[in-house]
Order: sequence, then structure tokens, then C-alpha cells
Amino acid sequence: MAALTFPQASSDKRALEEGEACTPRFDANGLVTAVVTDAADGMLLMVAHMNAEALALTIETGIAHYWSRSRNALWKKGESSGNFQHVVEMRTDCDQDAIWLRVNVTGHDATCHTGRRSCFYRTVGQQNGVATLSADGSAPLFNAEDTYRKK
Amino acid sequence: MAALTFPQASSDKRALEEGEACTPRFDANGLVTAVVTDAADGMLLMVAHMNAEALALTIETGIAHYWSRSRNALWKKGESSGNFQHVVEMRTDCDQDAIWLRVNVTGHDATCHTGRRSCFYRTVGQQNGVATLSADGSAPLFNAEDTYRKK
Repeated sequence: MAALTFPQASSDKRALEEGEACTPRFDANGLVTAVVTDAADGMLLMVAHMNAEALALTIETGIAHYWSRSRNALWKKGESSGNFQHVVEMRTDCDQDAIWLRVNVTGHDATCHTGRRSCFYRTVGQQNGVATLSADGSAPLFNAEDTYRKK
Repeated sequence: MAALTFPQASSDKRALEEGEACTPRFDANGLVTAVVTDAADGMLLMVAHMNAEALALTIETGIAHYWSRSRNALWKKGESSGNFQHVVEMRTDCDQDAIWLRVNVTGHDATCHTGRRSCFYRTVGQQNGVATLSADGSAPLFNAEDTYRKK
């Protein structure tokens, strides 16, 4: 259980955008968007969501926690795979509805549940008027099937 | 009006995650999350949202378009300020509910509506058990008040 709590977001735009109070604007589901990049080279690793508890635990422990929308549960990233994310820097945006984590990943240095380093392993293009995806060739760094197999 | 359309997302996890079909998983509001970084140095510039029309226009024109949730309208970023975003590369993530744009910004090289280069100009920390924000000192690159004043 986290000790940190967050005051309600100010309705004063200037306070929200220029102030020193951390007052995240959680959405109707109680979540903010979290963008996660590698602190070493800036690679975008994943996009996830945090509720107040996950955000507080991340600040308190320095290890990234999220809210899993698919499992409807608090999610300490890396608990199954060992690929924990150590937070080097945390930022928020002008209207405080998004969080940016710059992290160092332990374990296999892999963030995606497919075993790849990043979730963003496909580029978007178009061919003959149809949007298409192309894999960038990045290979799994661990065996996801074994790692996530239900015990 | 964009010509590109997107097929419904596959319920087959493997097709969604490993396939070449671009089938974004728009949420209940018809939106995907868009993460925007500077193609030159990887700085996170903003987090926004796209509906199918904005995504299609971005692919077709190479200039970033979004859906403004506050104005409830299609939003060609830079129309007021001249700070257009030219897309160098577009990626999507494993489950296709997020888009990553690597861009070059024209005009003042500023993305935030406050006039700053990035929306993420404050770091998050804690002092005496309270979460706090610290400005990173980045200054406005254009006069936002003049630029966005209602005509």
C-alpha cells in the first residue's frame, strides 16, 4: 500500500501547467497514460496506464508499477519475467494527464510481452492505398511462452 | 477527407501482434494513443490521441493530425502556430492500440501550447512524503498568448 496521495487537480489552468503541485488528472477510469523510454538511448519501450496507487508506488520505490487494464489489477512490471524497470527520471506533461518514465530495464532488457525489447517493433506504411505493418526484425530476448505459462 | 480506412482488429492475438495488417484497436471513444518524439534526439514532445480519420490523414500526408478531445475536432497540429510535425517514421505497438510518431517540427520547433519545445517540462519527485514537480527551465520558444488569442 502506497503512502503518497495526490491532491485533486486544480481547475486553475496556470496552477496545473506552471505549478509545483503534482496533481495528476486521472481519467474517468482513474488512470493516466504512462510513456516508457529507455534512459540510455531513448527507445520507446511501451505505453501503459497508472492509477494513483501505481503512480505512488513508482515514486516511492523507483520501480515502475502500472494498472493492468486487461487483468484489472496492480501490475509490478517484471514480476513474472524479471524485467523490472528502474526509474531514472519521471516527468509529467503540461496538463498532467500523462507520465513519462525514463528507465533502465533489468533481466533480459526486454519490455514487450512477446519477448522483444520494445512493444513498437513494427513500422506503419501504405501500399496501394492500404495501411500495412512491417516488422523491424527485432527478435525475442526471452521465451515468452515459457515465462508467462500459467503455473 | 482521408481515403485510407482500417479493417476491424483481429480477435486472433497472433494476427494482431505478428501480422502485417494495420488494424488499430480504437477505444470506446474511437481513439488510439499517439506518442510523439523528436526524430533527431528522441525527446518526448507530446502525448495525444488519433481517431481513424486523423491516423489516415497522417499516413497519407506525412503531417501529424490528431483528434482534439477538448475541442472535439480534427486537429492538424501547427495550423495556428506554424509548428507542423513532419513524420519521419510511424510505428505501432504489439496490440495496436498506440502509435509512435518520430517527427521533425517546423516553425519554432515548439510542440507545447505553452510555447515550450516539449509538453514534458517538469520532473516528478517527492519531498517530505508529498509528490512535487520541478520545472526543467525550458523557456517558451514563441508567444503562446498572442498565437492562440481568439481571432
